Amino acid sequence: MNLASIEHAAGCIRRYAVETPLLRSAALDAAIGGRALLKVESLQVAGSFKFRAAIFRLSCLTAAERRAGVVAYSSGNFGRALAAAGQLLDVRVRVVVPEDAPEAKVQGIRALGGEIVVSRHGDESREAVAARRAEQLAKDSGAVHLHPFEDELLITAHAALALELLSQARRVVDAVDDTIVPCGGGGLAAGCCLAVTELGERTRVHAVEPETCDGMRRSVQAQRVEDAGGTRGSICDALLAPRPGGIAFRIAGSSLAGVVVVTDDEVRRALRFAVDVLNLALEPSGAAPLAALLAGKLDVRGKCVAAILTGGNVGASRLATLLGEEDA
Amino acid sequence: MNLASIEHAAGCIRRYAVETPLLRSAALDAAIGGRALLKVESLQVAGSFKFRAAIFRLSCLTAAERRAGVVAYSSGNFGRALAAAGQLLDVRVRVVVPEDAPEAKVQGIRALGGEIVVSRHGDESREAVAARRAEQLAKDSGAVHLHPFEDELLITAHAALALELLSQARRVVDAVDDTIVPCGGGGLAAGCCLAVTELGERTRVHAVEPETCDGMRRSVQAQRVEDAGGTRGSICDALLAPRPGGIAFRIAGSSLAGVVVVTDDEVRRALRFAVDVLNLALEPSGAAPLAALLAGKLDVRGKCVAAILTGGNVGASRLATLLGEEDA
Repeated sequence: MNLASIEHAAGCIRRYAVETPLLRSAALDAAIGGRALLKVESLQVAGSFKFRAAIFRLSCLTAAERRAGVVAYSSGNFGRALAAAGQLLDVRVRVVVPEDAPEAKVQGIRALGGEIVVSRHGDESREAVAARRAEQLAKDSGAVHLHPFEDELLITAHAALALELLSQARRVVDAVDDTIVPCGGGGLAAGCCLAVTELGERTRVHAVEPETCDGMRRSVQAQRVEDAGGTRGSICDALLAPRPGGIAFRIAGSSLAGVVVVTDDEVRRALRFAVDVLNLALEPSGAAPLAALLAGKLDVRGKCVAAILTGGNVGASRLATLLGEEDA
Repeated sequence: MNLASIEHAAGCIRRYAVETPLLRSAALDAAIGGRALLKVESLQVAGSFKFRAAIFRLSCLTAAERRAGVVAYSSGNFGRALAAAGQLLDVRVRVVVPEDAPEAKVQGIRALGGEIVVSRHGDESREAVAARRAEQLAKDSGAVHLHPFEDELLITAHAALALELLSQARRVVDAVDDTIVPCGGGGLAAGCCLAVTELGERTRVHAVEPETCDGMRRSVQAQRVEDAGGTRGSICDALLAPRPGGIAFRIAGSSLAGVVVVTDDEVRRALRFAVDVLNLALEPSGAAPLAALLAGKLDVRGKCVAAILTGGNVGASRLATLLGEEDA
């Protein structure tokens, strides 16, 4: 994983992905006292940044692997992205989803031709059960098993997203002081750190996690991969990885400038702000960086901060509910 | 108003406005059986396409007029756009709003430094009362009175939007068969017709109106400006002009390929589709073209259709309500 491989990935991805806008908002700038650049990946194909990783990953399959198809487990966005990519590249995609995955995401996978395998986890970790199921399914059928984040190719694709962001940012500002991205397994955070290092940029990369599932924060503190701990859940359904990926942590653990956490109420406020001010429908996980900025979790006064709003696959019914819920 | 003046406007506008994305959606294409290109003006500065017209209009003021400030009446988007433009160009902006204007839009004007003058219309036409009030206010204070759509400079700015759309479209498709835009006073429809004629493009321009406020349809049928008729209202609060503007009708009346109408239920379905599939928060008026496409009001099977989603200033509370409302 170096600049050449990131640029190669960017070239592959560009053929299929949207160059999503880098939006600015005077109202947001006023609210945070700094200058924000919002990379709106909720407008990406299949509604999240994961499409970049999915299309690149499938582009890297051999002819035989393409014919065999792929199996992956996913709470939603990676599965939906794979389904979209599979449709474009004519690869059979099966997605193992936990039984409690949001309905909008499951529908989204089906609508794009992805095949759903529901995994019932009972008292066990939903990721562990779904991962085993996907692995077994791949073994039985000869399909390729894709891990949702523990994969260098995916991290390279995420780095290509950071490359695009920084290139767009260069056209409007002199320097991006800070960059903040949602963190589940840590793949995106790792990709951003990688891109920044390889480009020799100076922006400080921050990860944002749900307060109740802060595996990266714990791991950075302990200087080794730690469990996210706590099964209290969060409305940020895409950020519930049981722990950071090993590859992701190797890259991000030492490069991240910091990890901040947000509460569900802070995320709800960000979802409302996104509709009220930005006219965007975001999913909770995709709004986490906005939540961190609005809640002042990062000192960005007088600085320029880039935030990746990673996805918007929330569904109308759930969004209406989330917007209607009162908070403190 | 010719290609040179449209290009001049485009140049002025580009310094301040966002080049909004021209989005595609496989799910939308599948739903309509054609190829749709969505010009997402809800992501424009101040949340609607009106910002282009506002910034261009204020750019055209003389130094003395800038100092005197402007007064306009607006149900929301034009006022919000003027406020944003006034902030950028340091021009005092007063907006006369009807007492029943959506709260989100009034807040939006205030947040951008616009001054609100509420107009109470009782049983009279809200536009007539607000227009008189704005005119009087301008006369009393020496400010410049801006009409929200009966103004060649505004129509030129709308034409510049069409220019941008067609230039983006050329990068992804061979030809745009049809273009569909929301119609209130008809300024945007006129601007699109103007741009298409001046460029010698062949796309057929269609206007979409609320079923209950179809002034352009009536006017095109009668071949002269007719009242929109009906005070039944519509959730499309930005499309409730009492009749098409004279200048707009002169241009659009003979050039429009057709006028279609949509019901509030069709617009609600489009608002849900926008969140479910496109991850966009649209306002009802901005979703009208999408409603027309999803309801099959235009035969676009096998064709390429461009639609301008003009605005997204709906506010979280109202969007939650609209998404929650059941329809037939």
